[in-house]
Amino acid sequence: MRTQVRTEERHNTVMDASRGDDGWITVVSLKLAPPSLRDNTADVDRLIKGLEKALQSTHVKIGLPAAKRVPFLLREYGYDVHSVLYREEDTWHLIDIQPASKEPQVYGLAVDLGTTTLVLRLVNLLNGQSLEETSFLNPQTEIGLDILTRIHFAALEGGLGKLQMLAIDKLNQEIENLAKRNGVSSEALVGMAIAGNTTMTHLFLGLDPYRICREPYIPAINKIPLLKASELGIRIHPDAPILVFPNVGSYFGGDLIAGILASGMARSDRLSILVDVGTNAEIVLGNRDWLMACAGAAGPALEGGVASIGMMAGPGVIDKVTTDPGSGEFLFRTMEDRPPAGICGSGLIDLVAQLFLAGRIDIQGKYVPEKCGDRLKEIEGMRSYVLVPAKRSATGRDLALSQAEIDALLRSKAAMFTILTTITGMANVSMSDFRDFFIAGTFGAYINPESAITIGMVPDLPRETYKPLGNTSLAGASVALLSSWARDEIQEIRNRVTYIELNVNQEFMNLFSAARFIPHTDLSLFPSVRTPVASQKYRE
Amino acid sequence: MRTQVRTEERHNTVMDASRGDDGWITVVSLKLAPPSLRDNTADVDRLIKGLEKALQSTHVKIGLPAAKRVPFLLREYGYDVHSVLYREEDTWHLIDIQPASKEPQVYGLAVDLGTTTLVLRLVNLLNGQSLEETSFLNPQTEIGLDILTRIHFAALEGGLGKLQMLAIDKLNQEIENLAKRNGVSSEALVGMAIAGNTTMTHLFLGLDPYRICREPYIPAINKIPLLKASELGIRIHPDAPILVFPNVGSYFGGDLIAGILASGMARSDRLSILVDVGTNAEIVLGNRDWLMACAGAAGPALEGGVASIGMMAGPGVIDKVTTDPGSGEFLFRTMEDRPPAGICGSGLIDLVAQLFLAGRIDIQGKYVPEKCGDRLKEIEGMRSYVLVPAKRSATGRDLALSQAEIDALLRSKAAMFTILTTITGMANVSMSDFRDFFIAGTFGAYINPESAITIGMVPDLPRETYKPLGNTSLAGASVALLSSWARDEIQEIRNRVTYIELNVNQEFMNLFSAARFIPHTDLSLFPSVRTPVASQKYRE
Repeated sequence: MRTQVRTEERHNTVMDASRGDDGWITVVSLKLAPPSLRDNTADVDRLIKGLEKALQSTHVKIGLPAAKRVPFLLREYGYDVHSVLYREEDTWHLIDIQPASKEPQVYGLAVDLGTTTLVLRLVNLLNGQSLEETSFLNPQTEIGLDILTRIHFAALEGGLGKLQMLAIDKLNQEIENLAKRNGVSSEALVGMAIAGNTTMTHLFLGLDPYRICREPYIPAINKIPLLKASELGIRIHPDAPILVFPNVGSYFGGDLIAGILASGMARSDRLSILVDVGTNAEIVLGNRDWLMACAGAAGPALEGGVASIGMMAGPGVIDKVTTDPGSGEFLFRTMEDRPPAGICGSGLIDLVAQLFLAGRIDIQGKYVPEKCGDRLKEIEGMRSYVLVPAKRSATGRDLALSQAEIDALLRSKAAMFTILTTITGMANVSMSDFRDFFIAGTFGAYINPESAITIGMVPDLPRETYKPLGNTSLAGASVALLSSWARDEIQEIRNRVTYIELNVNQEFMNLFSAARFIPHTDLSLFPSVRTPVASQKYRE
Repeated sequence: MRTQVRTEERHNTVMDASRGDDGWITVVSLKLAPPSLRDNTADVDRLIKGLEKALQSTHVKIGLPAAKRVPFLLREYGYDVHSVLYREEDTWHLIDIQPASKEPQVYGLAVDLGTTTLVLRLVNLLNGQSLEETSFLNPQTEIGLDILTRIHFAALEGGLGKLQMLAIDKLNQEIENLAKRNGVSSEALVGMAIAGNTTMTHLFLGLDPYRICREPYIPAINKIPLLKASELGIRIHPDAPILVFPNVGSYFGGDLIAGILASGMARSDRLSILVDVGTNAEIVLGNRDWLMACAGAAGPALEGGVASIGMMAGPGVIDKVTTDPGSGEFLFRTMEDRPPAGICGSGLIDLVAQLFLAGRIDIQGKYVPEKCGDRLKEIEGMRSYVLVPAKRSATGRDLALSQAEIDALLRSKAAMFTILTTITGMANVSMSDFRDFFIAGTFGAYINPESAITIGMVPDLPRETYKPLGNTSLAGASVALLSSWARDEIQEIRNRVTYIELNVNQEFMNLFSAARFIPHTDLSLFPSVRTPVASQKYRE
């Protein structure tokens, strides 16, 4: 028997990297004794025997499709082979065998199955290294941009099948291109892990999402069995296992479980919070002993959907605003250094924070004309602050922020802070107890905690507490692809999370009203925020 | 929760019928609480939870195809359902759900996958009762009657696929007819167990049989994983499990394991022997502590292939010959009381025994003219005994047995006895120690032990020791379909059987020569056989 080559776990997230073990997709290299009259064990049984010895397991299974190939391949490779296997519970399943004369070719795919965007990462399962990442529009957007439209479409004759086919076909096409670019054959793609919200997961699997959006909000399935590529029509190795993240419920999907997994918070003894801001703010807090989650509408103003100059992140989008200490002028950064065309959520938070710090808006967010000077204009009957004059903008129009847009942002930030206050109250912890404040999502990767604290969107914690994690759905899928312990942890997270429905009652509304000020009516909650003189004066 | 209905085990074989337990295909009936805002568990997870409680198991799995149906069906049936499941190791897998308002419809198929004939038995899995049995020609016989022709054909382009398709298509057609005749829907056929020799099993699964007949005689696979109907294209419930009996090796197939299972010998503390006589004599001996097996050419003369009047069992075939005590005339019985057309193996053994007892042949099997009278004729230059004169036969020709044909039968019986002597010697047991002498096969069902002992084909044991079992391949498949313990026992048998290659060495040939006499040169081995005066005289 030759040495065994096993997958090693590597990841780019904050999870405890010391927790090394073997992967659940692995390679065992062994040289079998060829059959003889004295040892006429059947080919498949011979391989199983060798693998059981190497893996110190009594549960190695070879399915019919692999069993058909094994006798030919064992002979072709002179009984000297790499066996690629995956483990499900106590049983190892053979995916394929490769000649021992070459390096094993063992790659996997991590997939973030987003409502709008799909992200695909090609990973070398032998060393955990990411080869390339690619993102593309979810082709289901041609049916409907939002989830509800797709759920309704799925109920039409052939609708569900069409939605599933759109996603699978596009994924197959992107996988093919990705593999080709990296010189990887489709047969060498031997595993996939995929995380999405509950509806996206249902559509991907061809499961009826009809009841997800109807009281009492019942998904068809929460815990998804390990599937095979051939079952789903995914054109990688037909026997490759497909791990689909489970849901907790209709409004808590596999993408969030992936986020918790990637953050490592479910294994940490530190109190942590994970915030994923999209259309909904999705929040998880807890530690290795408990996990609590909730979701609430908080984000529209942050996603570029409210401000007229608001945009999704992209070239020419202002993602950062600061104040020049000398001139007191606002400075901004655009993505890819293109002429400014709009502003994204993180830029907007920066801008409002800078407006406040310069005294150009007061603690209620109202413009202070004497501080704004000629930057303040009446546009379409509303006071608006011109950040970029028309002559310098990419659009040929002033990039300006109206009073109504500030009000919308402050409602969003107030909603966020109220949700944080409410959930921590329900969990009986204080926000000051958080040792890690994880921010998930592309948006979160750009956000400046200083600005978010300044406007009172998030609590006034030491700045290093804030940790942007980027695409945690993809990161979690990568962890699940590489680590043998991840699947147990996924189920554990799923079982442990207590999902809280937030009731918008009188107390919530009182908290919300108090949180609409900058940073808050209760300034003692934000001791580090310099309240400018103008605001203080206004307040007196 | 409602009462559980489980399959009960019933069988028609000699195995220990008191060993009752639940089947591995079972029905659990339960009424689930419908979902509500307070309990919004997903449909599939809700069913799994209910089943895990009912089965006191933490391993209930619902695959993707079933998961797609479950949400609809749970609602259609008001969350009050029969669940049909099968167990593999510790895990229960859902096959389907049915409305609790009706009796569960749960049927299975046992299949004897013979080289020449396929036999199909429809079984009610709730009470173990057999509804109907049907047999039909293996359509692969159109490619070749014998195994070797088919193995060679399988090596041709498309040959293996064609052989597999022939068997599956014919089986599907016969299943459809069988189910229709018995008012059973194809969806209610939820399991199948199938036993065949190693080559037939390979062809049925689409596995290359090429190396089975070539040194060192390596099957592609011995231990076959549990398959699903959809994997093989068998048109019963697509998620129905298909249990295929494993092989011990190229020359010891699943049909023999099924025979051992049906006989119960592997669980017995009595020393038993199981003999299956076809073209080869296949022999197993042992008890619950050990099992030894061998095979050897012994049968051609017994299968109707050697004697010119020899035939396979069928209408008009003489299957029994006795002597009228008064007249000393031979009496015979034909199948279905038709005019005699030939003689089958059991009739041939009877005839030779009666010829010997009447002194019409001597201990060497040579005709004694003075005893035969005008029954002895010269036909095509050879002494032949006319059992049925032309005028009374269905063929219009004398039904006669030539000296050469008797010699061939005696070689066959000598081979059989020699193999029995050799294998018992290797096992270090005496033939007189056998408490059960099981005879498998249709041929075995007709054989008269008295006659077989008289000619010295089998040992001189108390007649009640001989137990014809009929089609043990089908019986074993039925046991495997119904009994939860059978699958463990099948693997245990497979692991325990020691297969012995019989070497045709000098000692074997010496034994063979001694066994060519009637009943044997050593008369002390057959104390109960009356050696007629004429023979004794000849011997002196």
